[in-house]
Amino acid sequence: MKHTAGELAAYLGATLHGDSGAAISGVASPEKATAEDLLYLDSPKNRERVANSAAGCVLARPGVRLTSKTILEVEQPKFAFVKAAAWLAPQVALKAAIHPTAIVPKTARLHANVAIGPYVVIEDGVQIGEETIIEAFCFLGSASVVGKNCRLHPRVTLYPGARVGDRVEIHSGTVIGGDGFGYVFGEGRQWKFPQIGTVSVGDDVEIGCNTTVDRGSLGETHISGGVKIDNLVQIAHNVQIGEHTVIAAQTGISGSSSLGKRVAVGGQAGIGDHCCVEDEAKVGGQAGVVVGKTVRRGQTVWGTPARPLEKFKEQYAWFARLAELAARVGKLEESEHGEKG
Amino acid sequence: MKHTAGELAAYLGATLHGDSGAAISGVASPEKATAEDLLYLDSPKNRERVANSAAGCVLARPGVRLTSKTILEVEQPKFAFVKAAAWLAPQVALKAAIHPTAIVPKTARLHANVAIGPYVVIEDGVQIGEETIIEAFCFLGSASVVGKNCRLHPRVTLYPGARVGDRVEIHSGTVIGGDGFGYVFGEGRQWKFPQIGTVSVGDDVEIGCNTTVDRGSLGETHISGGVKIDNLVQIAHNVQIGEHTVIAAQTGISGSSSLGKRVAVGGQAGIGDHCCVEDEAKVGGQAGVVVGKTVRRGQTVWGTPARPLEKFKEQYAWFARLAELAARVGKLEESEHGEKG
Amino acid sequence: MKHTAGELAAYLGATLHGDSGAAISGVASPEKATAEDLLYLDSPKNRERVANSAAGCVLARPGVRLTSKTILEVEQPKFAFVKAAAWLAPQVALKAAIHPTAIVPKTARLHANVAIGPYVVIEDGVQIGEETIIEAFCFLGSASVVGKNCRLHPRVTLYPGARVGDRVEIHSGTVIGGDGFGYVFGEGRQWKFPQIGTVSVGDDVEIGCNTTVDRGSLGETHISGGVKIDNLVQIAHNVQIGEHTVIAAQTGISGSSSLGKRVAVGGQAGIGDHCCVEDEAKVGGQAGVVVGKTVRRGQTVWGTPARPLEKFKEQYAWFARLAELAARVGKLEESEHGEKG
Repeated sequence: MKHTAGELAAYLGATLHGDSGAAISGVASPEKATAEDLLYLDSPKNRERVANSAAGCVLARPGVRLTSKTILEVEQPKFAFVKAAAWLAPQVALKAAIHPTAIVPKTARLHANVAIGPYVVIEDGVQIGEETIIEAFCFLGSASVVGKNCRLHPRVTLYPGARVGDRVEIHSGTVIGGDGFGYVFGEGRQWKFPQIGTVSVGDDVEIGCNTTVDRGSLGETHISGGVKIDNLVQIAHNVQIGEHTVIAAQTGISGSSSLGKRVAVGGQAGIGDHCCVEDEAKVGGQAGVVVGKTVRRGQTVWGTPARPLEKFKEQYAWFARLAELAARVGKLEESEHGEKG
Repeated sequence: MKHTAGELAAYLGATLHGDSGAAISGVASPEKATAEDLLYLDSPKNRERVANSAAGCVLARPGVRLTSKTILEVEQPKFAFVKAAAWLAPQVALKAAIHPTAIVPKTARLHANVAIGPYVVIEDGVQIGEETIIEAFCFLGSASVVGKNCRLHPRVTLYPGARVGDRVEIHSGTVIGGDGFGYVFGEGRQWKFPQIGTVSVGDDVEIGCNTTVDRGSLGETHISGGVKIDNLVQIAHNVQIGEHTVIAAQTGISGSSSLGKRVAVGGQAGIGDHCCVEDEAKVGGQAGVVVGKTVRRGQTVWGTPARPLEKFKEQYAWFARLAELAARVGKLEESEHGEKG
Repeated sequence: MKHTAGELAAYLGATLHGDSGAAISGVASPEKATAEDLLYLDSPKNRERVANSAAGCVLARPGVRLTSKTILEVEQPKFAFVKAAAWLAPQVALKAAIHPTAIVPKTARLHANVAIGPYVVIEDGVQIGEETIIEAFCFLGSASVVGKNCRLHPRVTLYPGARVGDRVEIHSGTVIGGDGFGYVFGEGRQWKFPQIGTVSVGDDVEIGCNTTVDRGSLGETHISGGVKIDNLVQIAHNVQIGEHTVIAAQTGISGSSSLGKRVAVGGQAGIGDHCCVEDEAKVGGQAGVVVGKTVRRGQTVWGTPARPLEKFKEQYAWFARLAELAARVGKLEESEHGEKG
């Protein structure tokens, strides 16, 4: 959507220096920007890239000036940039249609204004809300529910009964509602613990590609509103994830663990069974939170077993100087030996 | 299937206290249970949840009593619960049918009593056994074989020639028989080692979502009967996995490694090439068994490089007290210096 | 393709001892080999397996002799074997055809000589080169491009605009071009950083099963020619991977990192944001290269945080002997105490 720099400044509450009538139609990288693309500058090291770009308008911190650029002064240029990007993004008009190859039973309740792609399979009793897009090869198991304004990219699977809120985006290859992993060994073989629970995904959630979210065993797996999950993440049965939490790629959350609100989990982290990661805690990349542990509110942990970051750093600093410490002990022993010898 | 408490007690060999005629139709969590749902109580901390539930019958250890509940006394309540759950589970009658959109060549040999879902692609020479269910978007490559009473959830891929036994369940997105990963660098580029071997999955195996099991390079990748594999697991070429072994999510087993029987592997563990994990060993979550190593029968290992758990704990205890040890060395040095000074 | 030992010796530049007219039609393992299969022997421990096989011809180092086998002497038997395997591999004639269930819009430009499998979905403006095979359930988003002589196994997703070079093989379940993972928290919620960049894959690349490669955020994600990527790997937005680099299963490369040429990354390794792994470096299995770090050209690193392998080994040796070091300190303290006492 095309706007002027003045309109954008008003939307963002930015102070404008330069041409308030300059057209802005999108965002870009400095290298790809045209005159109508908006850039942001939040670090001196990028100053030259931005200055040399073709862009006409730049979001920058108060006082920053760039020759022949219109500046929109804001406290947080990157945040203003993402807000602007969302505002400028072209609103694609949904072409409401059900592709003739999609299989939609009469028992399914689809809002009139939905887009169902080719080779979609919808089972009995499925519900789909307004302006939702279901792309090719998606499978919506019986009685599953997808809210309004959602987008399921090609090849998403919802197991029967899975529930997805509004404005949810799920990327290609992701599976919601598979059976949890629980067995009891007895009489010479593994017996499956019943995996008959439910799974629900709140509003405004985004889930990456090839991620797996299991249903509850007897209870529910729940992903709260505003949560963002990357690719190849594993969410086990009965996990609870609080609002606005972000989970990076290849992380695994084991059975019955709960994460609070606004938690940040790095890539490849592992959280054992029955853990509790409280609000606003941070779990570093590859960290391993051991079974049953709690990460306190706001705490940052790293390592396996995961411990507070400052502790990890202190321990690691000593670890890295072990050879030196051993040499000091050797010297003491020598001296001791000398005295006695 | 509806039963009475008396019938269930007889099936489980449990001692009944209470109403032997009480109806039991399923299992549930304490919070969701109706009067006809069975619960289990194996820890005092859950006593209140169970006591306050609507359930009429509870599996518990000998001597446990709950007001107005019928008790089935057993030594292992959780194990009895999973056995009961399997016994009570509704037996869904298979609707034998091949969906008109499924592609089934004349050279495929399907038992008359199978259920093939929409948009399934079956190639030449495929065999499918009695009462097997193949759900939407499954791809069965040429000459692949699936036994009887199997269930392939939507979107499972079997590469050509892959063999799957009886009573196997494979979840959505899993790929069996992809090419192994092996290259030799020479003449300025990577050359692919031939990946022309086979892959076979034994009876009573369950495999989670988005897992990958590669075919052998020249030989065979083999998953034995009763093995249970979680989501997003990687099983490389030529791997051998023994009976009743369980492998948690996001674990990777590298080329030519072998796991024995009843091994338990935690989540995100990595087992290098040419390792041997013997019967009943346990590999902890995120542990890394280094290339070529053996984990002895019954041993529990943790850490990277993986070592016996007791060793890990001892080392870690010292590691956590390194600052203290260094302070002690410092004090000795001071005293030494004092003497000499 | 059937050849003689003499022809193969000429192709490989090998010195032949034995029957130059012996027929060779393929490669195999010693256990499965027929008289016409080629084997290689590069380690004395395999000598018996090879000697006892039915194979007529064996690649071996100069001077090696096996009773009644024709020997092709080469410096690197394994490398010669992979070269021979490629040379001997049956050239399957492509059956150019578009399956009637494939959806191909008029705006797509497909070379006349392509094979498009059942239930393939191709969107507007897609280009596909000569002799390329697109198998069942592949999804090629609008304006995506696939070069010539490629093979996309069943169920590969290319997001709109993804570009794939020539002679590329992509295995089942892999997704190229999903949105990168970047959010900025503000005003009480996560805002998505725009993910509007591109993704390109060079020539001669092979990518395993269920791997994910994200598009650039504003710029490009690029995988150079000759790169080989295993199963379940995550390649984040804006990552650059140099020629002939190999990346083992379940590894994750975070946003904006670059890997040089001929780098080798072990399984389950993690490379943080904005890292630089220079040419010919090696990152060990499960290693974690911390955000922003550089791994120098040719260096081998291991552990988390990743450090040079020799340093890791030295540190780990001390770590494993911490109890002993502590005992030495204790003894010194005792002696000190004795002197003073």
